[in-house]
Amino acid sequence: MEWNGTVTAVAETARAGESPRQGERTRRRILARAADIASVEGLEGLTIGRLAADLNCSKSGLFAHFGSKEELQLATVVYASEQFKSKVLAPSHAVPRGRARLEALLDTWMRHIESDGFPGGCFFAAAAHEFDGRPGPVRDRLATAMKWWFETLRDEFRHAQQIGEFRAEVDAVQITFKIHAMAMEANWGCQMYKDPVWFLRGRQGIQEFLNQAAA
Amino acid sequence: MEWNGTVTAVAETARAGESPRQGERTRRRILARAADIASVEGLEGLTIGRLAADLNCSKSGLFAHFGSKEELQLATVVYASEQFKSKVLAPSHAVPRGRARLEALLDTWMRHIESDGFPGGCFFAAAAHEFDGRPGPVRDRLATAMKWWFETLRDEFRHAQQIGEFRAEVDAVQITFKIHAMAMEANWGCQMYKDPVWFLRGRQGIQEFLNQAAA
Repeated sequence: MEWNGTVTAVAETARAGESPRQGERTRRRILARAADIASVEGLEGLTIGRLAADLNCSKSGLFAHFGSKEELQLATVVYASEQFKSKVLAPSHAVPRGRARLEALLDTWMRHIESDGFPGGCFFAAAAHEFDGRPGPVRDRLATAMKWWFETLRDEFRHAQQIGEFRAEVDAVQITFKIHAMAMEANWGCQMYKDPVWFLRGRQGIQEFLNQAAA
Repeated sequence: MEWNGTVTAVAETARAGESPRQGERTRRRILARAADIASVEGLEGLTIGRLAADLNCSKSGLFAHFGSKEELQLATVVYASEQFKSKVLAPSHAVPRGRARLEALLDTWMRHIESDGFPGGCFFAAAAHEFDGRPGPVRDRLATAMKWWFETLRDEFRHAQQIGEFRAEVDAVQITFKIHAMAMEANWGCQMYKDPVWFLRGRQGIQEFLNQAAA
């Protein structure tokens, strides 16, 4: 509530004419709320009217930042991607490359989906299932973001193979498919049945695949 | 188009007063179209007005069958469950119990999701991601239907364990989690990237898990 109040205050300031830096801050706070809503209720429910009501600010204040529903949806996907990169990818740079970094990425990812990220679980899983049948720029951006992550995991596995940590004959795409599936399944089960045991099962599956692939 | 015309004709008949058997046929034809729409665009987009426009019939004709949007959504979930049982479960009864039946169930399931089912891929995966954050009867019915399927697979695996086809020490819930995840991942990837290679990967993963668990 208090936090919403802050957003409202800043959003209203935007209408009165704020500096570019203040404007960017406002925009990011609005998008944080938009991503929370979208993770629970879907991107399609994310209209400017809905968001304005939620933030208790005027529609015109939001229109100053986002000209249309689609622009708001696109900006929310970009925001969620940035959050993902700063919360999941960035911390892994402190970890040596190879299996250690791959495990760090997977561990942070699972925690991000389970509790550190958005209230409705994985933003991208929810949005992907919503938009996979709706051609257009929102769907394209989601597909690109999820492909990037899949390939990041695959490339880290391949690096670990090259330095001899995993057996060379293991199919990097196939093991990435299985690992990625564990996180998606954990997210689905935990969201559907509100039981964290689904994440335990997902982590157990990932460990099993990595141990089987170990040199 | 021709098929839509048939639905319209029968729906209009309903208003004029049709027999209970005709009414049930009409209802099922309407629900078949509703499930197709929901698999692509989501259950939330499934309003009586949207469906009436799609079937080119009157809203009052549909109101005779479904009194509200929620009733229509619930009936669509029940319809999709019945379709699943008749298309995926029923054929397996001809196959001997144990690993053979489990593989038959998994094979038919993958084909149902990939091509024989609804145009937007797995109806339940789409609906689950849409409704997992929306408490209510639609969400509850989806959760029950998906739990039933998960437990059907788990129980068939356990039966195969009891007759000595799989090793007794394999955790039936954990392997069902991994198998179920392969189908969900294949559905996600194929819907998102329109490439059937995702189903090949899913099938390969399932075979690998079953072979590893074999006695």
